[in-house]
Amino acid sequence: MAIATNTTPDRVSFETSPATYHHWKLSFDGPIATLSMDVQENAGLSPDYKLKLNSYDLGVDIELADALQRIRFEHPEVRTVVVTSLKERIFCAGANIFMLRGSTHAWKVNFCKFTNETRLAMEDASENSGIKFLAALNGICAGGGYELALACDEIILVDDGNSAVSLPETPLLAVLPGTGGLTRVVDKRKVRRDLADVFGTVAEGVRGKRAVEWRLVDAVYPTSQFRERVAKRANELAAQSDRPSAGPGVPLGPLDPQVTENKVTYSAVTVEIERARRVATLTVAAPVGDQPVTPDAMLAAGDQYWPLRAFRELDDALLRMRLNEPLIGTVVVKTVGDGSAVLAVDETLLTHKEHWFVREIVHHMKRTLKRMDLTSRSFFALIEPGSCFVGSLFELALAADRSYMLDDPDQPNAIALSAMNGGPLPMSNGLTRLQTRFLGTPERVAEVLAEGEPFDAQAAMDAGLISFAPDELDWDDEVRLAVEGRAAFSPDALTGMEANLRFAGPETMETKIFGRLTAWQNWIFIRPNAVGEQGALTAYGTQKRPEFDFNRT
Amino acid sequence: MAIATNTTPDRVSFETSPATYHHWKLSFDGPIATLSMDVQENAGLSPDYKLKLNSYDLGVDIELADALQRIRFEHPEVRTVVVTSLKERIFCAGANIFMLRGSTHAWKVNFCKFTNETRLAMEDASENSGIKFLAALNGICAGGGYELALACDEIILVDDGNSAVSLPETPLLAVLPGTGGLTRVVDKRKVRRDLADVFGTVAEGVRGKRAVEWRLVDAVYPTSQFRERVAKRANELAAQSDRPSAGPGVPLGPLDPQVTENKVTYSAVTVEIERARRVATLTVAAPVGDQPVTPDAMLAAGDQYWPLRAFRELDDALLRMRLNEPLIGTVVVKTVGDGSAVLAVDETLLTHKEHWFVREIVHHMKRTLKRMDLTSRSFFALIEPGSCFVGSLFELALAADRSYMLDDPDQPNAIALSAMNGGPLPMSNGLTRLQTRFLGTPERVAEVLAEGEPFDAQAAMDAGLISFAPDELDWDDEVRLAVEGRAAFSPDALTGMEANLRFAGPETMETKIFGRLTAWQNWIFIRPNAVGEQGALTAYGTQKRPEFDFNRT
Repeated sequence: MAIATNTTPDRVSFETSPATYHHWKLSFDGPIATLSMDVQENAGLSPDYKLKLNSYDLGVDIELADALQRIRFEHPEVRTVVVTSLKERIFCAGANIFMLRGSTHAWKVNFCKFTNETRLAMEDASENSGIKFLAALNGICAGGGYELALACDEIILVDDGNSAVSLPETPLLAVLPGTGGLTRVVDKRKVRRDLADVFGTVAEGVRGKRAVEWRLVDAVYPTSQFRERVAKRANELAAQSDRPSAGPGVPLGPLDPQVTENKVTYSAVTVEIERARRVATLTVAAPVGDQPVTPDAMLAAGDQYWPLRAFRELDDALLRMRLNEPLIGTVVVKTVGDGSAVLAVDETLLTHKEHWFVREIVHHMKRTLKRMDLTSRSFFALIEPGSCFVGSLFELALAADRSYMLDDPDQPNAIALSAMNGGPLPMSNGLTRLQTRFLGTPERVAEVLAEGEPFDAQAAMDAGLISFAPDELDWDDEVRLAVEGRAAFSPDALTGMEANLRFAGPETMETKIFGRLTAWQNWIFIRPNAVGEQGALTAYGTQKRPEFDFNRT
Repeated sequence: MAIATNTTPDRVSFETSPATYHHWKLSFDGPIATLSMDVQENAGLSPDYKLKLNSYDLGVDIELADALQRIRFEHPEVRTVVVTSLKERIFCAGANIFMLRGSTHAWKVNFCKFTNETRLAMEDASENSGIKFLAALNGICAGGGYELALACDEIILVDDGNSAVSLPETPLLAVLPGTGGLTRVVDKRKVRRDLADVFGTVAEGVRGKRAVEWRLVDAVYPTSQFRERVAKRANELAAQSDRPSAGPGVPLGPLDPQVTENKVTYSAVTVEIERARRVATLTVAAPVGDQPVTPDAMLAAGDQYWPLRAFRELDDALLRMRLNEPLIGTVVVKTVGDGSAVLAVDETLLTHKEHWFVREIVHHMKRTLKRMDLTSRSFFALIEPGSCFVGSLFELALAADRSYMLDDPDQPNAIALSAMNGGPLPMSNGLTRLQTRFLGTPERVAEVLAEGEPFDAQAAMDAGLISFAPDELDWDDEVRLAVEGRAAFSPDALTGMEANLRFAGPETMETKIFGRLTAWQNWIFIRPNAVGEQGALTAYGTQKRPEFDFNRT
């Protein structure tokens, strides 16, 4: 097989739909959905590698993320998702090694980040939406394949004397199982650390009874019983769910942004790129016109309902930025429109929060904001007259690294909070952004939430809700200098600094995956022992044997 | 100034004493100790750099660590330590940049690890030993200087119109404040993340009232009041302590191991190096002969009392291994001697745990075991006939990545637990090693602790206390293959894997520093934007301006 030297595609779209999937089959049988991996080896994002043995690249994962989203919105009746494979005796061989080898460092990192977010979205659906995931491992399950299984609630492995689960990254490739594998083994499945140590170094993996004893899988069944046992367990899991027993769901239409060289325009979101300054301006617009206030009306509005539409667009904009605009270092965040319309939508969502569709919308907003927290760009929120940083849109200012609010008595300008800032949109550390912000003065959280009036710039400064409030004389210079100053710093140092400052307070399995595991993996992904000329990732599948510098660090 | 290209010393000793300090003055006035930094610029570990402006290298930090240890053991009457500087208008300029620039990657990483451990030891003394630390910043306090202050309980800054606290690493050097700085700013001092973001990018730092408002320091006083206010606060802090009002303390004599090419021999610890296999064997011996059972007898035994002596030797052995033996990848851990003697010492320590000396001994054992957890070498414990993996020494097996216990009925071989395994020796994640081990079956912790009898190999396997129990036919091959197999893997992947598997469960500020912050810093420390030919660390202090690859990762 030819070794690709640069398999990083130029531009990626994150939009897809089941009709155009190359790699997954999604089928439904009442409360049970089956998501079957059937990777087409010639349909990778790049022609430079073949996706053999159900190995995956970003394109495969974009389809998976899409399928998960559609199950949540389009199929409210689904209570269990069986994750399996259509390939004989192979569940999934993990991330494609030739793709990884040929990728730039930034691509590797962003690929892993997206796949991690997708697996966490499975766990989010399980925890919050009554959708349980059952991994039905019908064959070899290696590396990223096992990491996909780990993201499921339960894992059933076929006991055919051959099929094993494994994390062969360290012994074969000199990298880590970086899609949450190490973390989930010890933190989610609570495999004993010494057994995890053995498991992580045995390339052929563990199968049969030992896999159960070590807590790596929940059950093993012989081939003859496998399908039946999977079906039985899928139904048992479904019985625990509080999802509605029938639809209708809400079809998710294409976003179809208008994309030009320097601008991406959606209905409620725009991204404008200033390449020379390495700055993008991300603007989110408030809803316009009458908004639904009942569940039926919301369902009728469907994917055009503002909070779903605007946050889907925001999510897409963030993803495109990450993959397609690596040179943009700073994102100026703006909002525009009628703040009272945003607050009214917040109130409607909170009133009907028990309704399945509202629940999905709010969790989707939450996941999108988490995506922003995890995006390695500097975000500066600019709060200017005509903006609407209120309620759920104020989370954008809280997610930003800094916020600047114009203090000009001649141009009224206010921010406001809603109950959406008080709980429904937590960060991955388990705290709300207000709680994280006020870690040192926790009593302030309730105080600012209880404040009935909007905050003008001085009040917002006094309350600690914004970073700076320049007046009209200083505004232009202060903002310009801040943005230009940021652009001059090393992007690596900023990435590391932001990853440390944004996640004050407790750590969760989720933050451990992005903090501890990912940071170590990023280090290893640029070490010669992995990616150098004689590194193991470079040598894999060739005649060469890797050669290591054995100095321990 | 000449730019050093390799300033990494060949071999480092971690032994020192106040009489030979180059860089610190330690003075005592009743309950107040004053630890004054006065770095001698020509007394760095390498002649290739000058330690100007109270900047530091590992040698300066070894003295600091020694001073902290002596305050705990030799000066039980000390209740507050004032950390200040003898240089006019300069507290500390942080880690020496020319030293960092000229160091190998592994040196940078191990330097930061040791300095982090030393600062955590200050917080340990505050939390557990009634010794409060007051940073008296009499001048400029930059980077690692401010990180040292952050490790103190309180920070007083002189308000002279010039002296500021700062973390200029990101803007000036394109690296992170990696000695806990970013973590402590938001997690310990709970500085708001947007203010921390500003602080972390403003090279000149923050001074005066703003430093207090942003929570970066606790108080500022004009030069005229500074000394008096520091003294007053030091006394107030001392009044809160439960330390004895007078000595005598326990002098810590030199360890003076016998060091040959392939062996380091202490009284209770030996390290044997097999260079060809990249393996070291670390052996800890049980106490021999009568052991003290009363506090007076323990004080009389002083630094020769086994638990203090053996763990001081173990600590020194681990540090030498880290810095002086980078090619040793695997450490085989053994114990030898009479297990009942170890258990008797454990019982004595537990009986007198309220005594200040016992308290110091136990916390020192704890810190030493944490040092092992954080050492990036693979540890395999070998539990053989004649060994004494019992009680506090069983922690060595629990700290190891794996343990192998010979199962041979002809050669009795047992392990045993004591109450020392049940709480006094927690890991940095806040859990005991047993709790971390049994994260998935927490009820097992109490069960194994309640077991009155020793565990033979089968019982130990059944209880989940060891990894493997080969019989005498398999033992040699199984152990040999495990050790040889380990030596063949990429050391970077093993470091990353171990850093993820060893710390299951909750994260603390301490684990965040080693997990999140350090892992990001390690990544940045090999990025061209920092250490490349045009990187900022390379360019600092030269005529060159750094040039960055502005791609965000």
